[in-house]
Amino acid sequence: MSRKVDERAAIIARIRDDNRRGASELARDAVAALEEFAATVTCNVLMETRALAHELAGLRPTLCAISDLLGHCLEELEDEVGKPSAIVERAVERTLSWSNEATERTVTRAVEVLRGAAVIMTHSRSSTVQAALARLAPPTRVIATESRPGFEGHDLARQLAERGAQVDVITEAEIGLVVSEADAVLVGADAILRDGSVVNKVGTHGLALAAREYQIPFYVCAESFKLSASTTFSNEEHDPAELEAPTHPGIRPRNFYFESIPAGLISMYLSDIAIENEIELAPKRR
Amino acid sequence: MSRKVDERAAIIARIRDDNRRGASELARDAVAALEEFAATVTCNVLMETRALAHELAGLRPTLCAISDLLGHCLEELEDEVGKPSAIVERAVERTLSWSNEATERTVTRAVEVLRGAAVIMTHSRSSTVQAALARLAPPTRVIATESRPGFEGHDLARQLAERGAQVDVITEAEIGLVVSEADAVLVGADAILRDGSVVNKVGTHGLALAAREYQIPFYVCAESFKLSASTTFSNEEHDPAELEAPTHPGIRPRNFYFESIPAGLISMYLSDIAIENEIELAPKRR
Repeated sequence: MSRKVDERAAIIARIRDDNRRGASELARDAVAALEEFAATVTCNVLMETRALAHELAGLRPTLCAISDLLGHCLEELEDEVGKPSAIVERAVERTLSWSNEATERTVTRAVEVLRGAAVIMTHSRSSTVQAALARLAPPTRVIATESRPGFEGHDLARQLAERGAQVDVITEAEIGLVVSEADAVLVGADAILRDGSVVNKVGTHGLALAAREYQIPFYVCAESFKLSASTTFSNEEHDPAELEAPTHPGIRPRNFYFESIPAGLISMYLSDIAIENEIELAPKRR
Repeated sequence: MSRKVDERAAIIARIRDDNRRGASELARDAVAALEEFAATVTCNVLMETRALAHELAGLRPTLCAISDLLGHCLEELEDEVGKPSAIVERAVERTLSWSNEATERTVTRAVEVLRGAAVIMTHSRSSTVQAALARLAPPTRVIATESRPGFEGHDLARQLAERGAQVDVITEAEIGLVVSEADAVLVGADAILRDGSVVNKVGTHGLALAAREYQIPFYVCAESFKLSASTTFSNEEHDPAELEAPTHPGIRPRNFYFESIPAGLISMYLSDIAIENEIELAPKRR
């Protein structure tokens, strides 16, 4: 096989099979991959790169940030003239730069709102939430769920602790017991749907219900490139073997990674643009 | 060391350190252990046995069934005359027989109330709940949480599946996503406190909140020997290493096994005696 074919297959597998990184990180990696790919293509560079962008955009429908940033990059490609690989390089650079600014504004907003909270609880690992928590802590204490089945909460805890934060790690089973210690809950989002409901790692709904029970504010922190044009999402069911349940014909392990959380459970959206709760979300700005 | 001293230490360790079996099973084992112990004692049999019973009763304050059944057995010992080891044997036998009848009546009550429910969700593994589910399934489908950190849900799933049941196994993170599929939730109890709140495996509170959100009845199934005279419980925090979180001075894994669930979240208590919801529970019948 040619270098191009190898590279293309490797990029598709890397975006399709990554269950550890959050939506922002994966979306930026998908954009950066276009530049890597373009460097391996010898003819029809822009056509081939666009085709790959379209294929990558369809791989993970739950994570709308991927198709959103790739769409941004495809728009950047449209207006360009010059050497094809240089066009791709500039479009990727501008898209990543724009997405990083969106993240920075989102993190700044989260830090503004949460400054003063002594204990913040989160679930799973959102890179945007992690950046906000790293700026807030210390002296903030973080309560992190381990986040079955992938245990991404362990990565979050280690990375925050290495920067000096105090992190309590709990099981999802302990959410209802421990949530009352938190001053606020802060989670990321894989997508924000048109009705304001939020798609995020499974377990977030239970955390939102527990937070409401104790009247603890529940904040969703997500860049505008996670706003979805859709009002529904179709849940991905993953390899049942990952749950390591006993094997028996009568036993069916169910391994969903995502779920949607109704808008009514969300106290405030923290983003690079204003997002209102409990009203139809505005169409995307592009 | 004498055989008696060895036996006594082994019995204490067996009741103190068992984190897999539920309250009913452990309580019956504690009673049965008195008979084993009495057989190793050569003088002052009744005094020594009573002393061991008192020591065992104090080992696991959260699991009031242990002190309750031991108390029952101590009462049986009071009225007896004859050969000491035979007295212990008869008292143990009567206590176990009484507790088995209480369990049987409780299971029968649960089966009466839940007959007709096509999908029943449970959490952790209660031997009483398991007995009821085994009688209800098939055709009932069971949704069982894996129950971190001990994964007792795996034992429950395997034992029910071996008897022909269909069991879905989920993580605790999936409770909020999956609970709406259930017609009823059925959990056991480690204790029912005087105000009607229920002490059970951590994760039960989150399940009760999710059940209420979808208006799914939440049943607590527990024998009368789990009624506690107390209105509070002190939670046991277990070995943090069991969570297998990353090791770092800034990371504190928190490993609670139990939590209490307010009476207001409980639709009905299923027991061998009538227990009213939302009123002060009657004093114990003995």
